[in-house]
Amino acid sequence: MWHMKKVAFYYWPMIQGRGEFIRLLLEEAGADYLDVARTKGGTAAMMRFLDGKEPGALPFAAPFVRVGRTVVSQTANVLAFLAPRLGLVPRDEALRAEASQIQLTIADFVGEIHDTHHPIAGSLYYEDQKREAKRRARNFVEERLPRYLGWLEDVLARNRRSGGRWLVGRDLTYVDLSAFQVIEGLRYAFPHAMARLERRIPRLIALRDRVAARPRIAAYLASKRRLPFNQLGIFRSYPELDLPRGR
Amino acid sequence: MWHMKKVAFYYWPMIQGRGEFIRLLLEEAGADYLDVARTKGGTAAMMRFLDGKEPGALPFAAPFVRVGRTVVSQTANVLAFLAPRLGLVPRDEALRAEASQIQLTIADFVGEIHDTHHPIAGSLYYEDQKREAKRRARNFVEERLPRYLGWLEDVLARNRRSGGRWLVGRDLTYVDLSAFQVIEGLRYAFPHAMARLERRIPRLIALRDRVAARPRIAAYLASKRRLPFNQLGIFRSYPELDLPRGR
Repeated sequence: MWHMKKVAFYYWPMIQGRGEFIRLLLEEAGADYLDVARTKGGTAAMMRFLDGKEPGALPFAAPFVRVGRTVVSQTANVLAFLAPRLGLVPRDEALRAEASQIQLTIADFVGEIHDTHHPIAGSLYYEDQKREAKRRARNFVEERLPRYLGWLEDVLARNRRSGGRWLVGRDLTYVDLSAFQVIEGLRYAFPHAMARLERRIPRLIALRDRVAARPRIAAYLASKRRLPFNQLGIFRSYPELDLPRGR
Repeated sequence: MWHMKKVAFYYWPMIQGRGEFIRLLLEEAGADYLDVARTKGGTAAMMRFLDGKEPGALPFAAPFVRVGRTVVSQTANVLAFLAPRLGLVPRDEALRAEASQIQLTIADFVGEIHDTHHPIAGSLYYEDQKREAKRRARNFVEERLPRYLGWLEDVLARNRRSGGRWLVGRDLTYVDLSAFQVIEGLRYAFPHAMARLERRIPRLIALRDRVAARPRIAAYLASKRRLPFNQLGIFRSYPELDLPRGR
């Protein structure tokens, strides 16, 4: 890893959310970073950026990072910006484009996961869109979940450079960390649907285990820096949105 | 513009959709490209990539491009890959990251626009989710539409390098072409909501007019290569989802 200025990371302090994809990158790299909104007065500091009171590119939403004077937002863009500096993506331009296309597909997947519990509006309570959520979630677990996971499994199977061990190139990249996070979240949110699906995605589950066993990731997951999943984040445990047990 | 291999562009032949953001880039650059799926046998050629029967990175969905042996998918990633080769983004890395974060925010915006008519599932007919669509669209026109357009207006106002004329850096970039396309689509899909909002986003409307007047864009828009908006794409004209006239 080469030298990089300290990273100031900004995200809502109560949830893993989209910020977790960036936290996993910083942790795996052993980067020098500060999770600003989890420090005293940090949420107010974050809001100054979102309210346009700080210089640099204006974020539409958190997460975002500041490195020196550069402000970078949109999760996949933050990862693409940081990963070359932290040795977590290959130098080859075509492989970087492939990493980015996988990360953006994961971002679409995460958006659909979020919308299972908020199909009408992010600004309304779940309880006020529960009927619509059940309808959307049924389509999600039956069609979209197998489609996205099957695609990730296919990408692994096609990557002969790594013998199907990693998604892009020969070694672990930031995209593998994101795939790990998605599997963890889905197991929390849709345990019965996942129990049914996991035997059809053996490479992806093996990748998840390989990431979990990385020393820095294992240390992070066991630390207080790793927030637990909860009912405020993207991945939520609403049994009525999952498949029935054992189906 | 520097020399680049011919671009093979793949997207559904009946709609503007997400592919249009890439078509606008290729047209503004005067690039040598082929809209493959609009040629004889072209849709079958596209399906071979989506079915995993061609080498290179596996696309999850169209649009994608092939340049030489490199296959690149996900609209924002395709734009970030092509724009440096076509002189439509600055060299500076921080400005490229800013272009990418704006494009990804536009992608989120476009996803929300799509979901106004398909809040439950892309695989169901509009008529089978019309009630939910009305609920989602009401929230969209009242909260999300002003929020996204207001953010783009703020980004323009903050960009002193261009005197508020372009979104990133001193000159036109691919992001400005995408902002143009979003305004065009919103005027088609939500004419009454836009009529009410446009006076609050004067810089963005001036940018739209500036893009429309570019000679290559004007020639493209007047050509048969520009597909009309229709009820199959992202932007659809369903009056029941718009605000009432004159509100």
